[in-house]
Amino acid sequence: MNDLRQIQQRMNEFVAERDWEQFHSPKNLSMALAVEAGELMEHFQWMTEEDSARLPADKLAEVEFELADILLYLVRIAEQTGIDLLGAVNKKMELNEKKYPAHVVRGSSRKYTEYN
Amino acid sequence: MNDLRQIQQRMNEFVAERDWEQFHSPKNLSMALAVEAGELMEHFQWMTEEDSARLPADKLAEVEFELADILLYLVRIAEQTGIDLLGAVNKKMELNEKKYPAHVVRGSSRKYTEYN
Amino acid sequence: MNDLRQIQQRMNEFVAERDWEQFHSPKNLSMALAVEAGELMEHFQWMTEEDSARLPADKLAEVEFELADILLYLVRIAEQTGIDLLGAVNKKMELNEKKYPAHVVRGSSRKYTEYN
Amino acid sequence: MNDLRQIQQRMNEFVAERDWEQFHSPKNLSMALAVEAGELMEHFQWMTEEDSARLPADKLAEVEFELADILLYLVRIAEQTGIDLLGAVNKKMELNEKKYPAHVVRGSSRKYTEYN
Repeated sequence: MNDLRQIQQRMNEFVAERDWEQFHSPKNLSMALAVEAGELMEHFQWMTEEDSARLPADKLAEVEFELADILLYLVRIAEQTGIDLLGAVNKKMELNEKKYPAHVVRGSSRKYTEYN
Repeated sequence: MNDLRQIQQRMNEFVAERDWEQFHSPKNLSMALAVEAGELMEHFQWMTEEDSARLPADKLAEVEFELADILLYLVRIAEQTGIDLLGAVNKKMELNEKKYPAHVVRGSSRKYTEYN
Repeated sequence: MNDLRQIQQRMNEFVAERDWEQFHSPKNLSMALAVEAGELMEHFQWMTEEDSARLPADKLAEVEFELADILLYLVRIAEQTGIDLLGAVNKKMELNEKKYPAHVVRGSSRKYTEYN
Repeated sequence: MNDLRQIQQRMNEFVAERDWEQFHSPKNLSMALAVEAGELMEHFQWMTEEDSARLPADKLAEVEFELADILLYLVRIAEQTGIDLLGAVNKKMELNEKKYPAHVVRGSSRKYTEYN
């Protein structure tokens, strides 16, 4: 069993034991994920890009938990919609590899922006 | 090697081949992740919670790609900050299990809201 | 002078007195606004739609400040991009009135979702 | 009547004529606002801060509409929660002026980050 599946199962148990399925509609979970994405961004909003790449240890520990929260909600949404997260990611990476051929998009910020 | 690590390595290669590391500061990636979280939410914003749990096939296919995009940016941020995503999630789940004991928080929406 | 302009000028003075223009690139301000939008949403994420329309007084006071924060960043972005906010809103409302003729879109949730 | 009130009234009529109040719970509107905040950010995510301050005309026109959308949803939330937006902003600006005295916080990025 892959580790995304394992996280998903552990979360299923966690939620079931607390009777929290009732709050976990995909709608609500998508809000919760976006709220966490906002909390992640809050750490970086007034930093330069350079500083965001060399966080002090205390910031890093906070960012670590934000990343975890986002992944946990992601896995909950996958569960509640019946989506296979690993399958979705593999499909998307294949698509991206075709959509952005390295020899075409390489080394140009303008192209990057346009393609995305 | 766990599958989060595998996705991360495949993304590293994808980004390196296109010379896109220059755009991938944690600051920029956190914005990109939040943008994708917004796109995910857009599918649900005018739906009832019930409808969000039974998406038609075409919507579901779109949501699948949004989930993939979020995971891909998450993995990029982990890479650029040196955070071990699987480790972070395990740490956070342990913390949550202690913070919200099942027998205390079970079956109460008020408690759920307060605790979160 | 309209009141959006007045808010904008008061904020200009507030920021100048603190020498904070240096942090207020449109890029950073757009992040700050999205972070505040996340904080606003956090109040509603586990509520039903009905409950979100009848907030207790303490919640309402918090929501009030979130709305203020969003407007303040909006006004800062208008300032830093040279956009006339009132003009922009008037233009957009005219556009919406043409794009969604009342007799066509009235009373249908499906249409609402499709049009938006 | 201030212009925020005027926008609010024009939006009230727009929404009533289309029978769209039914979708406009504060919960849903907060999602819609956050989605628009994401669309605004999307314009800036791969730009440098400097470039975000000198947008080409076509980008600027798009950003203008994003700002308008955010303000329109903000005004709708004010309506649906009974919050006086102009009053809220004035209250918040007074608070900020006390919380961040110019002579204390001036000219320090570290202080800015900490205070915010």
